Amino acid sequence: MNVSIIGSGNLAWHLAPALDNTDFMVREVYSPNPSHAEALVEKLYEADVKASLDFSTSDSNIFIIATADSAIQEVAQEIVLPDEAVLVHTSGSQPLSVLGFAATPNIGVFYPLQTFSKEKKMDFAEIPLFLESENAFTEKILVQMAKALTKKVFKITSYERKALHVSAVFASNFTNHMLLIAQDIMKQNSLSYDWLKPLIAEMITKSLAIGPENAQTGPARRGDLKTLDKHIEFLQGDPALVDLYKMISQHILDHYQE
Amino acid sequence: MNVSIIGSGNLAWHLAPALDNTDFMVREVYSPNPSHAEALVEKLYEADVKASLDFSTSDSNIFIIATADSAIQEVAQEIVLPDEAVLVHTSGSQPLSVLGFAATPNIGVFYPLQTFSKEKKMDFAEIPLFLESENAFTEKILVQMAKALTKKVFKITSYERKALHVSAVFASNFTNHMLLIAQDIMKQNSLSYDWLKPLIAEMITKSLAIGPENAQTGPARRGDLKTLDKHIEFLQGDPALVDLYKMISQHILDHYQE
Repeated sequence: MNVSIIGSGNLAWHLAPALDNTDFMVREVYSPNPSHAEALVEKLYEADVKASLDFSTSDSNIFIIATADSAIQEVAQEIVLPDEAVLVHTSGSQPLSVLGFAATPNIGVFYPLQTFSKEKKMDFAEIPLFLESENAFTEKILVQMAKALTKKVFKITSYERKALHVSAVFASNFTNHMLLIAQDIMKQNSLSYDWLKPLIAEMITKSLAIGPENAQTGPARRGDLKTLDKHIEFLQGDPALVDLYKMISQHILDHYQE
Repeated sequence: MNVSIIGSGNLAWHLAPALDNTDFMVREVYSPNPSHAEALVEKLYEADVKASLDFSTSDSNIFIIATADSAIQEVAQEIVLPDEAVLVHTSGSQPLSVLGFAATPNIGVFYPLQTFSKEKKMDFAEIPLFLESENAFTEKILVQMAKALTKKVFKITSYERKALHVSAVFASNFTNHMLLIAQDIMKQNSLSYDWLKPLIAEMITKSLAIGPENAQTGPARRGDLKTLDKHIEFLQGDPALVDLYKMISQHILDHYQE
Protein backbone atom coordinates (compact mmCIF):
# COMPACT_ATOMS: atom_id res chain seq x y z
CA MET A 1 0.00 0.00 0.00
CA ASN A 2 1.13 3.54 -0.75
CA VAL A 3 0.37 6.52 1.41
CA SER A 4 0.19 10.25 0.74
CA ILE A 5 0.32 12.74 3.55
CA ILE A 6 -1.25 16.17 3.50
CA GLY A 7 0.38 18.39 6.12
CA SER A 8 3.85 18.60 7.61
CA GLY A 9 3.23 19.45 11.26
CA ASN A 10 4.29 17.56 14.38
CA LEU A 11 2.08 14.55 13.75
CA ALA A 12 3.07 14.18 10.07
CA TRP A 13 6.69 14.56 11.15
CA HIS A 14 6.41 11.42 13.32
CA LEU A 15 3.75 9.42 11.51
CA ALA A 16 5.34 9.50 8.03
CA PRO A 17 8.72 7.98 9.04
CA ALA A 18 6.92 5.43 11.25
CA LEU A 19 4.76 4.31 8.32
CA ASP A 20 7.85 4.22 6.11
CA ASN A 21 9.12 1.29 8.20
CA THR A 22 5.95 -0.72 7.49
CA ASP A 23 4.22 -1.98 4.33
CA PHE A 24 2.48 1.38 4.15
CA MET A 25 5.18 3.50 2.57
CA VAL A 26 4.78 7.22 2.21
CA ARG A 27 5.18 8.29 -1.42
CA GLU A 28 3.90 11.86 -1.43
CA VAL A 29 3.84 14.78 0.96
CA TYR A 30 1.81 17.92 0.37
CA SER A 31 2.08 21.04 2.47
CA PRO A 32 0.90 24.59 1.77
CA ASN A 33 4.50 25.42 2.69
CA PRO A 34 6.62 23.44 0.16
CA SER A 35 9.82 23.85 2.20
CA HIS A 36 8.15 22.04 5.12
CA ALA A 37 7.08 19.24 2.80
CA GLU A 38 10.64 19.10 1.47
CA ALA A 39 12.08 18.78 4.98
CA LEU A 40 9.77 15.88 5.76
CA VAL A 41 10.42 14.15 2.42
CA GLU A 42 14.13 14.17 3.23
CA LYS A 43 13.38 11.89 6.20
CA LEU A 44 11.61 9.35 3.96
CA TYR A 45 12.80 6.59 1.62
CA GLU A 46 10.97 7.27 -1.64
CA ALA A 47 8.62 10.19 -1.18
CA ASP A 48 8.13 13.24 -3.38
CA VAL A 49 6.83 16.68 -2.61
CA LYS A 50 3.42 17.27 -4.14
CA ALA A 51 2.79 20.79 -5.36
CA SER A 52 -1.02 20.66 -5.39
CA LEU A 53 -3.98 18.75 -3.97
CA ASP A 54 -4.65 17.12 -7.35
CA PHE A 55 -3.83 13.46 -6.64
CA SER A 56 -5.83 12.14 -9.65
CA THR A 57 -2.77 10.39 -11.10
CA SER A 58 -1.38 9.27 -7.72
CA ASP A 59 -0.40 5.66 -7.05
CA SER A 60 -1.36 6.00 -3.38
CA ASN A 61 -4.16 4.06 -1.76
CA ILE A 62 -4.43 6.01 1.48
CA PHE A 63 -4.48 9.79 1.91
CA ILE A 64 -3.86 11.08 5.41
CA ILE A 65 -4.88 14.64 6.27
CA ALA A 66 -2.54 15.66 9.11
CA THR A 67 -3.17 19.39 8.97
CA ALA A 68 -4.51 21.75 11.63
CA ASP A 69 -8.09 20.89 12.56
CA SER A 70 -9.35 24.09 10.97
CA ALA A 71 -8.00 23.10 7.52
CA ILE A 72 -9.40 19.55 7.33
CA GLN A 73 -12.77 20.36 5.79
CA GLU A 74 -11.27 22.59 3.12
CA VAL A 75 -8.65 19.99 2.18
CA ALA A 76 -11.36 17.32 1.98
CA GLN A 77 -13.38 19.46 -0.42
CA GLU A 78 -10.43 20.46 -2.60
CA ILE A 79 -8.48 17.23 -2.81
CA VAL A 80 -8.76 15.30 -6.08
CA LEU A 81 -8.36 11.56 -5.49
CA PRO A 82 -7.80 8.43 -7.59
CA ASP A 83 -10.42 5.66 -7.65
CA GLU A 84 -10.96 3.68 -4.43
CA ALA A 85 -8.83 6.10 -2.45
CA VAL A 86 -9.18 5.98 1.32
CA LEU A 87 -9.17 9.45 2.90
CA VAL A 88 -8.66 9.91 6.65
CA HIS A 89 -8.06 12.73 9.07
CA THR A 90 -6.04 12.42 12.29
CA SER A 91 -7.91 14.78 14.59
CA GLY A 92 -9.24 14.02 18.05
CA SER A 93 -11.80 16.78 17.94
CA GLN A 94 -13.25 16.53 14.42
CA PRO A 95 -16.08 14.11 13.56
CA LEU A 96 -15.82 11.71 10.66
CA SER A 97 -18.47 13.79 8.89
CA VAL A 98 -16.01 16.66 8.35
CA LEU A 99 -14.83 14.54 5.40
CA GLY A 100 -18.41 14.16 4.12
CA PHE A 101 -17.91 16.33 1.04
CA ALA A 102 -14.80 14.49 -0.14
CA ALA A 103 -14.90 12.82 -3.57
CA THR A 104 -14.63 9.31 -2.11
CA PRO A 105 -16.99 7.22 0.01
CA ASN A 106 -13.98 5.64 1.73
CA ILE A 107 -13.50 8.06 4.57
CA GLY A 108 -12.21 7.43 8.07
CA VAL A 109 -10.39 8.72 11.11
CA PHE A 110 -6.93 7.63 12.16
CA TYR A 111 -6.29 9.29 15.54
CA PRO A 112 -3.12 8.60 17.53
CA LEU A 113 -3.52 9.76 21.13
CA GLN A 114 -0.21 11.35 21.99
CA THR A 115 1.48 14.73 22.21
CA PHE A 116 4.07 15.17 19.49
CA SER A 117 6.93 17.61 19.19
CA LYS A 118 9.37 17.76 16.31
CA GLU A 119 12.45 17.48 18.53
CA LYS A 120 11.49 14.28 20.30
CA LYS A 121 11.42 10.80 18.81
CA MET A 122 8.26 8.80 19.53
CA ASP A 123 7.77 5.05 19.59
CA PHE A 124 4.44 4.41 17.87
CA ALA A 125 4.25 0.96 19.46
CA GLU A 126 3.36 2.71 22.74
CA ILE A 127 0.70 4.97 21.24
CA PRO A 128 -2.96 3.95 21.14
CA LEU A 129 -4.59 4.47 17.74
CA PHE A 130 -8.31 5.17 17.45
CA LEU A 131 -10.08 4.33 14.20
CA GLU A 132 -13.42 5.19 12.68
CA SER A 133 -14.54 4.14 9.22
CA GLU A 134 -17.42 4.96 6.93
CA ASN A 135 -17.48 1.45 5.42
CA ALA A 136 -15.97 -2.04 5.74
CA PHE A 137 -13.46 -1.52 2.92
CA THR A 138 -12.01 1.51 4.68
CA GLU A 139 -12.02 -0.19 8.07
CA LYS A 140 -10.07 -3.18 6.78
CA ILE A 141 -7.33 -0.97 5.37
CA LEU A 142 -7.16 1.31 8.40
CA VAL A 143 -6.94 -1.63 10.80
CA GLN A 144 -4.05 -3.05 8.76
CA MET A 145 -2.22 0.27 8.70
CA ALA A 146 -2.80 0.85 12.43
CA LYS A 147 -1.67 -2.65 13.40
CA ALA A 148 1.51 -2.15 11.42
CA LEU A 149 2.34 0.64 13.88
CA THR A 150 0.99 -0.51 17.26
CA LYS A 151 -0.89 -3.29 19.00
CA LYS A 152 -3.08 -0.70 20.67
CA VAL A 153 -5.77 -0.30 18.01
CA PHE A 154 -9.32 0.61 18.99
CA LYS A 155 -12.48 1.33 16.99
CA ILE A 156 -14.49 4.16 18.49
CA THR A 157 -17.25 6.47 17.30
CA SER A 158 -16.97 10.21 16.67
CA TYR A 159 -18.85 10.82 19.92
CA GLU A 160 -16.52 8.57 21.90
CA ARG A 161 -13.53 10.25 20.29
CA LYS A 162 -14.87 13.58 21.48
CA ALA A 163 -15.15 12.21 25.05
CA LEU A 164 -11.59 10.93 24.71
CA HIS A 165 -10.40 14.29 23.46
CA VAL A 166 -12.08 16.26 26.26
CA SER A 167 -10.56 13.82 28.76
CA ALA A 168 -7.17 14.28 27.15
CA VAL A 169 -7.48 18.06 27.51
CA PHE A 170 -7.95 17.65 31.27
CA ALA A 171 -5.30 14.92 31.58
CA SER A 172 -2.65 16.60 29.49
CA ASN A 173 -3.26 20.27 28.64
CA PHE A 174 -4.79 21.32 31.95
CA THR A 175 -2.35 19.24 33.97
CA ASN A 176 0.53 20.98 32.25
CA HIS A 177 -1.08 24.35 32.86
CA MET A 178 -1.19 23.58 36.60
CA LEU A 179 2.57 23.06 36.38
CA LEU A 180 2.93 26.41 34.61
CA ILE A 181 1.03 28.14 37.40
CA ALA A 182 3.24 26.44 39.99
CA GLN A 183 6.30 27.60 38.10
CA ASP A 184 4.93 31.16 37.95
CA ILE A 185 4.31 31.29 41.71
CA MET A 186 7.80 29.95 42.39
CA LYS A 187 9.37 32.52 40.03
CA GLN A 188 7.43 35.40 41.56
CA ASN A 189 8.90 34.42 44.92
CA SER A 190 12.42 33.89 43.57
CA LEU A 191 12.24 30.18 44.35
CA SER A 192 13.52 27.40 42.10
CA TYR A 193 10.90 25.46 40.11
CA ASP A 194 13.36 22.55 40.10
CA TRP A 195 12.55 21.98 43.77
CA LEU A 196 9.08 20.82 42.75
CA LYS A 197 10.23 18.32 40.15
CA PRO A 198 10.72 15.28 42.44
CA LEU A 199 7.24 15.91 43.87
CA ILE A 200 5.69 16.17 40.39
CA ALA A 201 7.42 13.02 39.15
CA GLU A 202 6.44 11.02 42.23
CA MET A 203 2.85 12.27 42.21
CA ILE A 204 2.35 11.23 38.58
CA THR A 205 4.05 7.87 39.10
CA LYS A 206 1.82 7.23 42.10
CA SER A 207 -1.33 8.45 40.36
CA LEU A 208 -0.71 6.22 37.34
CA ALA A 209 -0.02 3.26 39.65
CA ILE A 210 -2.84 3.51 42.22
CA GLY A 211 -5.26 5.80 40.35
CA PRO A 212 -6.01 9.50 40.87
CA GLU A 213 -8.80 8.77 43.36
CA ASN A 214 -6.40 7.12 45.82
CA ALA A 215 -3.43 9.34 44.99
CA GLN A 216 -5.18 12.58 45.92
CA THR A 217 -3.60 14.49 48.81
CA GLY A 218 -3.54 18.10 49.96
CA PRO A 219 -5.64 20.52 51.97
CA ALA A 220 -8.80 20.20 49.86
CA ARG A 221 -8.66 16.40 50.05
CA ARG A 222 -8.33 16.64 53.85
CA GLY A 223 -11.11 19.21 54.08
CA ASP A 224 -8.55 21.53 55.69
CA LEU A 225 -10.42 24.80 55.21
CA LYS A 226 -7.95 26.81 57.30
CA THR A 227 -5.11 26.05 54.92
CA LEU A 228 -7.35 26.72 51.90
CA ASP A 229 -8.11 30.16 53.36
CA LYS A 230 -4.43 30.86 53.96
CA HIS A 231 -3.57 29.92 50.39
CA ILE A 232 -6.37 32.11 49.01
CA GLU A 233 -5.07 34.98 51.11
CA PHE A 234 -1.57 34.33 49.80
CA LEU A 235 -2.81 34.51 46.19
CA GLN A 236 -4.98 37.61 46.67
CA GLY A 237 -2.80 39.81 44.46
CA ASP A 238 -3.86 37.67 41.48
CA PRO A 239 -7.68 37.45 41.34
CA ALA A 240 -7.69 34.99 38.41
CA LEU A 241 -5.53 32.59 40.42
CA VAL A 242 -7.74 33.01 43.48
CA ASP A 243 -10.76 32.04 41.36
CA LEU A 244 -8.93 29.01 39.94
CA TYR A 245 -7.69 27.93 43.36
CA LYS A 246 -11.19 28.24 44.84
CA MET A 247 -12.95 26.46 42.00
CA ILE A 248 -10.59 23.49 41.78
CA SER A 249 -10.46 23.14 45.57
CA GLN A 250 -14.27 23.22 45.74
CA HIS A 251 -14.43 20.54 43.06
CA ILE A 252 -12.10 18.35 45.12
CA LEU A 253 -14.07 19.04 48.33
CA ASP A 254 -17.34 18.17 46.60
CA HIS A 255 -15.92 15.01 45.08
CA TYR A 256 -14.72 13.55 48.36
CA GLN A 257 -17.75 14.64 50.35
CA GLU A 258 -20.14 12.79 48.06
CA MET B 1 22.15 12.81 68.43
CA ASN B 2 18.89 11.21 69.52
CA VAL B 3 15.54 11.95 67.99
CA SER B 4 11.97 11.63 69.24
CA ILE B 5 9.05 11.66 66.84
CA ILE B 6 5.57 12.82 67.67
CA GLY B 7 3.09 11.37 65.20
CA SER B 8 2.91 8.16 63.22
CA GLY B 9 1.41 9.21 59.88
CA ASN B 10 2.82 8.85 56.39
CA LEU B 11 5.71 11.25 56.90
CA ALA B 12 6.77 9.75 60.27
CA TRP B 13 6.52 6.31 58.69
CA HIS B 14 9.20 7.24 56.13
CA LEU B 15 11.26 9.80 58.03
CA ALA B 16 11.90 7.73 61.17
CA PRO B 17 13.50 4.72 59.39
CA ALA B 18 15.49 7.07 57.14
CA LEU B 19 16.90 8.88 60.20
CA ASP B 20 17.62 5.55 61.83
CA ASN B 21 20.25 4.93 59.15
CA THR B 22 22.09 8.13 60.06
CA ASP B 23 23.72 9.51 63.21
CA PHE B 24 20.30 10.84 64.20
CA MET B 25 18.70 7.71 65.61
CA VAL B 26 15.07 7.67 66.59
CA ARG B 27 14.66 6.62 70.23
CA GLU B 28 11.05 7.48 71.00
CA VAL B 29 7.78 7.57 69.13
CA TYR B 30 4.63 9.14 70.52
CA SER B 31 1.23 8.86 68.91
CA PRO B 32 -2.24 9.53 70.31
CA ASN B 33 -2.93 6.05 68.95
CA PRO B 34 -0.35 3.80 70.76
CA SER B 35 -0.84 0.91 68.33
CA HIS B 36 0.29 3.17 65.48
CA ALA B 37 3.35 4.19 67.50
CA GLU B 38 4.01 0.50 68.17
CA ALA B 39 3.87 -0.37 64.47
CA LEU B 40 6.38 2.35 63.63
CA VAL B 41 8.70 1.39 66.51
CA GLU B 42 8.85 -2.13 65.12
CA LYS B 43 10.52 -0.72 62.01
CA LEU B 44 13.25 0.97 64.09
CA TYR B 45 16.46 -0.26 65.75
CA GLU B 46 16.20 1.00 69.34
CA ALA B 47 13.06 3.05 69.72
CA ASP B 48 10.39 2.89 72.41
CA VAL B 49 6.77 3.89 72.39
CA LYS B 50 6.16 6.97 74.53
CA ALA B 51 2.86 7.05 76.37
CA SER B 52 2.68 10.80 76.98
CA LEU B 53 4.07 14.14 75.80
CA ASP B 54 6.19 14.45 78.96
CA PHE B 55 9.73 14.14 77.58
CA SER B 56 11.37 15.82 80.62
CA THR B 57 13.60 12.78 81.27
CA SER B 58 14.23 12.03 77.59
CA ASP B 59 17.76 11.55 76.23
CA SER B 60 16.71 13.00 72.88
CA ASN B 61 18.12 16.20 71.45
CA ILE B 62 15.64 16.74 68.64
CA PHE B 63 11.85 16.45 68.78
CA ILE B 64 10.04 16.21 65.47
CA ILE B 65 6.33 16.96 65.35
CA ALA B 66 5.04 14.97 62.35
CA THR B 67 1.33 15.17 63.15
CA ALA B 68 -1.54 16.61 61.15
CA ASP B 69 -1.14 20.38 60.69
CA SER B 70 -4.11 21.04 62.93
CA ALA B 71 -2.46 19.30 65.92
CA ILE B 72 0.94 21.03 65.79
CA GLN B 73 0.14 24.03 67.97
CA GLU B 74 -1.50 21.91 70.67
CA VAL B 75 1.43 19.50 70.78
CA ALA B 76 3.88 22.42 70.99
CA GLN B 77 2.02 23.81 73.98
CA GLU B 78 1.63 20.48 75.79
CA ILE B 79 5.00 18.88 75.18
CA VAL B 80 7.44 18.88 78.13
CA LEU B 81 11.03 18.99 76.91
CA PRO B 82 14.51 18.46 78.39
CA ASP B 83 17.02 21.33 78.46
CA GLU B 84 18.38 22.54 75.12
CA ALA B 85 15.84 20.48 73.20
CA VAL B 86 15.28 21.39 69.57
CA LEU B 87 11.63 21.24 68.54
CA VAL B 88 10.59 21.23 64.88
CA HIS B 89 7.47 20.70 62.84
CA THR B 90 7.38 19.24 59.33
CA SER B 91 4.53 21.16 57.76
CA GLY B 92 4.58 23.06 54.49
CA SER B 93 1.67 25.25 55.43
CA GLN B 94 2.40 26.19 59.07
CA PRO B 95 4.69 29.10 59.99
CA LEU B 96 7.55 28.68 62.42
CA SER B 97 5.58 30.79 64.88
CA VAL B 98 3.07 28.00 65.46
CA LEU B 99 5.75 26.63 67.81
CA GLY B 100 6.03 30.00 69.58
CA PHE B 101 4.45 28.80 72.83
CA ALA B 102 6.71 25.78 73.21
CA ALA B 103 8.92 25.55 76.31
CA THR B 104 12.14 25.89 74.30
CA PRO B 105 13.65 28.74 72.30
CA ASN B 106 15.18 26.21 69.90
CA ILE B 107 12.36 25.89 67.41
CA GLY B 108 12.49 25.20 63.71
CA VAL B 109 10.86 23.73 60.64
CA PHE B 110 12.04 20.60 58.87
CA TYR B 111 9.90 20.30 55.72
CA PRO B 112 10.49 17.53 53.17
CA LEU B 113 8.71 18.36 49.91
CA GLN B 114 7.30 15.05 48.77
CA THR B 115 4.07 13.07 48.77
CA PHE B 116 4.30 10.06 51.07
CA SER B 117 2.19 6.96 51.25
CA LYS B 118 2.70 4.10 53.69
CA GLU B 119 2.86 1.45 50.97
CA LYS B 120 5.63 3.01 48.91
CA LYS B 121 9.30 3.23 49.85
CA MET B 122 10.88 6.65 49.38
CA ASP B 123 14.53 7.53 48.82
CA PHE B 124 15.17 10.62 50.95
CA ALA B 125 18.29 11.40 48.92
CA GLU B 126 15.94 12.58 46.14
CA ILE B 127 13.76 14.72 48.37
CA PRO B 128 14.49 18.42 48.91
CA LEU B 129 14.40 19.46 52.57
CA PHE B 130 13.45 22.99 53.57
CA LEU B 131 14.69 24.36 56.90
CA GLU B 132 13.83 27.32 59.06
CA SER B 133 15.35 28.01 62.46
CA GLU B 134 14.68 30.42 65.29
CA ASN B 135 18.38 30.64 66.22
CA ALA B 136 21.86 29.58 65.13
CA PHE B 137 22.03 26.63 67.56
CA THR B 138 18.88 25.16 66.06
CA GLU B 139 20.00 25.86 62.52
CA LYS B 140 23.30 24.06 62.99
CA ILE B 141 21.60 20.92 64.26
CA LEU B 142 18.87 20.95 61.61
CA VAL B 143 21.36 21.40 58.79
CA GLN B 144 23.34 18.42 60.11
CA MET B 145 20.24 16.26 60.35
CA ALA B 146 19.00 17.32 56.90
CA LYS B 147 22.37 16.72 55.23
CA ALA B 148 22.47 13.25 56.72
CA LEU B 149 19.38 12.50 54.61
CA THR B 150 19.85 14.44 51.36
CA LYS B 151 22.14 16.85 49.57
CA LYS B 152 19.11 18.96 48.68
CA VAL B 153 18.96 21.17 51.79
CA PHE B 154 17.60 24.71 51.55
CA LYS B 155 16.97 27.44 54.12
CA ILE B 156 13.77 29.34 53.41
CA THR B 157 11.48 31.64 55.39
CA SER B 158 7.94 30.85 56.51
CA TYR B 159 6.64 33.16 53.76
CA GLU B 160 8.71 31.39 51.11
CA ARG B 161 7.57 28.03 52.43
CA LYS B 162 3.98 29.17 52.00
CA ALA B 163 4.72 30.12 48.37
CA LEU B 164 6.32 26.71 47.93
CA HIS B 165 3.31 24.99 49.46
CA VAL B 166 0.79 26.86 47.31
CA SER B 167 2.89 25.99 44.24
CA ALA B 168 2.98 22.37 45.33
CA VAL B 169 -0.82 22.33 45.59
CA PHE B 170 -1.09 23.40 41.94
CA ALA B 171 1.75 21.14 40.80
CA SER B 172 0.68 18.03 42.66
CA ASN B 173 -2.85 18.11 44.14
CA PHE B 174 -4.55 20.02 41.31
CA THR B 175 -2.64 18.14 38.64
CA ASN B 176 -3.84 14.86 40.10
CA HIS B 177 -7.39 16.18 40.26
CA MET B 178 -7.26 16.94 36.52
CA LEU B 179 -6.41 13.26 36.05
CA LEU B 180 -9.38 12.28 38.21
CA ILE B 181 -11.70 14.40 36.05
CA ALA B 182 -10.26 12.79 32.92
CA GLN B 183 -10.86 9.37 34.43
CA ASP B 184 -14.45 10.32 35.33
CA ILE B 185 -15.23 11.48 31.78
CA MET B 186 -13.75 8.30 30.34
CA LYS B 187 -15.75 6.13 32.78
CA GLN B 188 -18.99 7.97 32.03
CA ASN B 189 -18.48 7.14 28.37
CA SER B 190 -17.44 3.52 29.03
CA LEU B 191 -13.93 4.20 27.75
CA SER B 192 -10.73 2.90 29.31
CA TYR B 193 -8.71 5.38 31.38
CA ASP B 194 -5.65 3.27 30.55
CA TRP B 195 -5.76 4.68 27.02
CA LEU B 196 -4.74 8.06 28.43
CA LYS B 197 -1.74 6.80 30.39
CA PRO B 198 0.91 6.98 27.63
CA LEU B 199 -0.22 10.55 26.90
CA ILE B 200 -0.04 11.52 30.58
CA ALA B 201 3.40 9.97 31.05
CA GLU B 202 4.78 11.60 27.90
CA MET B 203 3.26 14.99 28.69
CA ILE B 204 4.84 15.07 32.17
CA THR B 205 8.20 13.83 30.88
CA LYS B 206 8.15 16.52 28.23
CA SER B 207 7.00 19.24 30.61
CA LEU B 208 9.72 18.41 33.13
CA ALA B 209 12.30 18.39 30.32
CA ILE B 210 11.42 21.51 28.32
CA GLY B 211 9.29 23.39 30.88
CA PRO B 212 5.49 23.80 31.05
CA GLU B 213 5.57 27.00 28.98
CA ASN B 214 6.98 25.18 25.94
CA ALA B 215 5.17 21.91 26.60
CA GLN B 216 1.69 23.42 26.47
CA THR B 217 -0.53 22.10 23.67
CA GLY B 218 -4.26 21.83 23.09
CA PRO B 219 -7.14 23.94 21.82
CA ALA B 220 -6.73 26.77 24.37
CA ARG B 221 -3.02 27.05 23.58
CA ARG B 222 -3.85 27.29 19.86
CA GLY B 223 -6.64 29.78 20.48
CA ASP B 224 -8.97 27.26 18.83
CA LEU B 225 -12.26 28.69 20.10
CA LYS B 226 -14.38 26.37 17.96
CA THR B 227 -13.01 23.29 19.70
CA LEU B 228 -13.36 24.95 23.11
CA ASP B 229 -17.04 25.58 22.33
CA LYS B 230 -17.52 21.97 21.23
CA HIS B 231 -15.95 20.69 24.44
CA ILE B 232 -18.09 22.99 26.57
CA GLU B 233 -21.16 21.73 24.73
CA PHE B 234 -20.02 18.17 25.34
CA LEU B 235 -19.72 18.82 29.09
CA GLN B 236 -23.01 20.70 29.43
CA GLY B 237 -24.63 18.00 31.56
CA ASP B 238 -22.12 18.80 34.33
CA PRO B 239 -22.18 22.57 35.05
CA ALA B 240 -19.28 22.40 37.53
CA LEU B 241 -17.09 20.82 34.87
CA VAL B 242 -18.18 23.41 32.32
CA ASP B 243 -17.12 26.16 34.74
CA LEU B 244 -13.77 24.48 35.36
CA TYR B 245 -13.16 23.88 31.67
CA LYS B 246 -13.98 27.51 30.84
CA MET B 247 -11.91 29.00 33.64
CA ILE B 248 -8.76 26.96 33.02
CA SER B 249 -9.04 27.45 29.24
CA GLN B 250 -9.47 31.20 29.72
CA HIS B 251 -6.40 31.24 31.96
CA ILE B 252 -4.39 29.49 29.23
CA LEU B 253 -5.77 31.83 26.53
CA ASP B 254 -4.88 34.89 28.64
CA HIS B 255 -1.41 33.59 29.40
CA TYR B 256 -0.42 33.05 25.78
CA GLN B 257 -2.07 36.23 24.50
CA GLU B 258 -0.07 38.44 26.85
